[in-house]
Amino acid sequence: MGKWYEQKPEQEGIVISSRIRLARNLKKYPFSNGLTTEESQRLIQEVKAAMLNDKTAISQQLDFIELSYKSGLDKLAMMERHMISPELLKKSVPTGVFIHQDESMSIMINEEDHLRLQSVTPGMDIEKAWDLADKIDDVLEETLEYAFDEKYGYLTCCPTNVGTGLRASFMVHIPALEVTGQLRHIVQAISKLGMTVRGMYGEGTEAQGSLYQISNQITLGQSEEQTIQNLKNITNQIIEQEIRIREKFLKEQPIQLEDEIYRAYGTLSHARIISAKEAMKLLSYVRIGYGLGILKKKAPEEGIFQLMMYTQPGNLQKRIGKEVGSSGRDAARATFIRSRLYTNDNS
Amino acid sequence: MGKWYEQKPEQEGIVISSRIRLARNLKKYPFSNGLTTEESQRLIQEVKAAMLNDKTAISQQLDFIELSYKSGLDKLAMMERHMISPELLKKSVPTGVFIHQDESMSIMINEEDHLRLQSVTPGMDIEKAWDLADKIDDVLEETLEYAFDEKYGYLTCCPTNVGTGLRASFMVHIPALEVTGQLRHIVQAISKLGMTVRGMYGEGTEAQGSLYQISNQITLGQSEEQTIQNLKNITNQIIEQEIRIREKFLKEQPIQLEDEIYRAYGTLSHARIISAKEAMKLLSYVRIGYGLGILKKKAPEEGIFQLMMYTQPGNLQKRIGKEVGSSGRDAARATFIRSRLYTNDNS
Repeated sequence: MGKWYEQKPEQEGIVISSRIRLARNLKKYPFSNGLTTEESQRLIQEVKAAMLNDKTAISQQLDFIELSYKSGLDKLAMMERHMISPELLKKSVPTGVFIHQDESMSIMINEEDHLRLQSVTPGMDIEKAWDLADKIDDVLEETLEYAFDEKYGYLTCCPTNVGTGLRASFMVHIPALEVTGQLRHIVQAISKLGMTVRGMYGEGTEAQGSLYQISNQITLGQSEEQTIQNLKNITNQIIEQEIRIREKFLKEQPIQLEDEIYRAYGTLSHARIISAKEAMKLLSYVRIGYGLGILKKKAPEEGIFQLMMYTQPGNLQKRIGKEVGSSGRDAARATFIRSRLYTNDNS
Repeated sequence: MGKWYEQKPEQEGIVISSRIRLARNLKKYPFSNGLTTEESQRLIQEVKAAMLNDKTAISQQLDFIELSYKSGLDKLAMMERHMISPELLKKSVPTGVFIHQDESMSIMINEEDHLRLQSVTPGMDIEKAWDLADKIDDVLEETLEYAFDEKYGYLTCCPTNVGTGLRASFMVHIPALEVTGQLRHIVQAISKLGMTVRGMYGEGTEAQGSLYQISNQITLGQSEEQTIQNLKNITNQIIEQEIRIREKFLKEQPIQLEDEIYRAYGTLSHARIISAKEAMKLLSYVRIGYGLGILKKKAPEEGIFQLMMYTQPGNLQKRIGKEVGSSGRDAARATFIRSRLYTNDNS
């Protein structure tokens, strides 16, 4: 089954994906940080039973993954593809995860909260992501009793998630805002509106390839629909600013922009050794090159975001089928990227 | 008529060219620094007459160039192609130059000395260069009386040229010696043997593209044949060292070397803006790539040294037929280089 990120985007737009995450806890267990091993295991069994109990098509497309049977490389690759979180891997009690066959949904068990439901859609389609997450939430609630307070809403381990337990986010590619330093101002401004901008792998991670996640911070005192609408409004403003700066570059420094983009393509299509960091930076230039129609080279079969993900250490090693050290990865990464870029249409 | 540097080398070898320069002065005139305008003009006429007086084929292939009719751009381009020296352009008295149609020989009049005869051959063929310079020297001596002392030899303006008045030199491409820092030791060692290593345009100029001139410093107390033989011996040792380091790189860091070379090719074949300095550096990598057989891209029709020369500011502007500013040159240079490199053979 094709994965959601394997769909080739019609254009290399600014919004890569829309994501919904719901934090849920079961009433009859203490929060995760107080769970015993035995309770953790029992909790996993209850979630499995709830999924089996469901008669809708949706739960049948999710498979339970025994993380303890997975290699470190598998888990790293899954984390890079956002199916599981770094936190899940750090837990000492038993954990588990259900994953949709197209990797567009997952349910982590015994992460910070008992349940972390997540749904992702390509492009700017957060309503669909919300709809899917809401459905799987309903499926589970058929059987499980959530920790819910009439006044506050869903109760969560960390107070910042109490209420809707919702984190809605857009992954955006905003190199123009980044390079001009305007992103810093945006980060400050939107934090006052209860929203935040983070690196590719969420809290505390560095942004690579000018990829950022814009998400809500507030979960209390507003409905899911309000949260999603506010986030969409803010994201649309950020997109407009990104477009404006891109157009300014195109108008005022067209040859400099073209030069940067073609140099990036030239390096990616010729290098024999390349680090993940450099690859992300150059792929970011190539992506904006296609997005703006400046780069006349035939586009690779995969979207550029997909190449970005495949150049991450875990996914790269999965692809070559073995664990290799840093220098081996840098060589394999260069070979992989070269194999995906065309050099036969001179322009 | 094809120029000497337009011959495509069979391989991108270490020695680019061999050059002979003879300093000569006419007995009946004071040295150049004491010449009046009138004397300078008369001296030019005498040289012209001597050339006309000659019945051999050689002098008929040299044309007198009226530098005062040439544009600044023409003169810069001629200088970059080593037909005239920067010093000649600085003179306030009338000067002149004879140039062979294939640009392999020139006779500068009223440079530091009354006459500077020069001959150049591609590759390591200094005997031929010497033979040609010697012949044109004989032609002139048929008519002109040189300032010559039985004890010291040819008298010259600067004492460092007294004796043979000969400067023999090889232009070599030695990136491996340069990058490892071993060139510094060589420079020190050979200066004790009366030889010197300089940048591309002689004394006081910076080396670009790892191109260096190795030449004799001593003109007194040794015959021309001895000078040439000593220089050849030293140059052969330098070549051997360059080859040894290249082989070491190939053996110990093959992928790093390949990476540098292919990245250089990728940038040159894709950039939209490139400075002369960066172009020289990257062309140097490409040249060593062809020389070592690492670079599998189809070689451009011109040799890489020829591309290096054409990317110099004067020659570049001559090629596009107009004077342009620095940023215009950087764009024109990138376009020119791209037009010469192939991108249609992926490897």
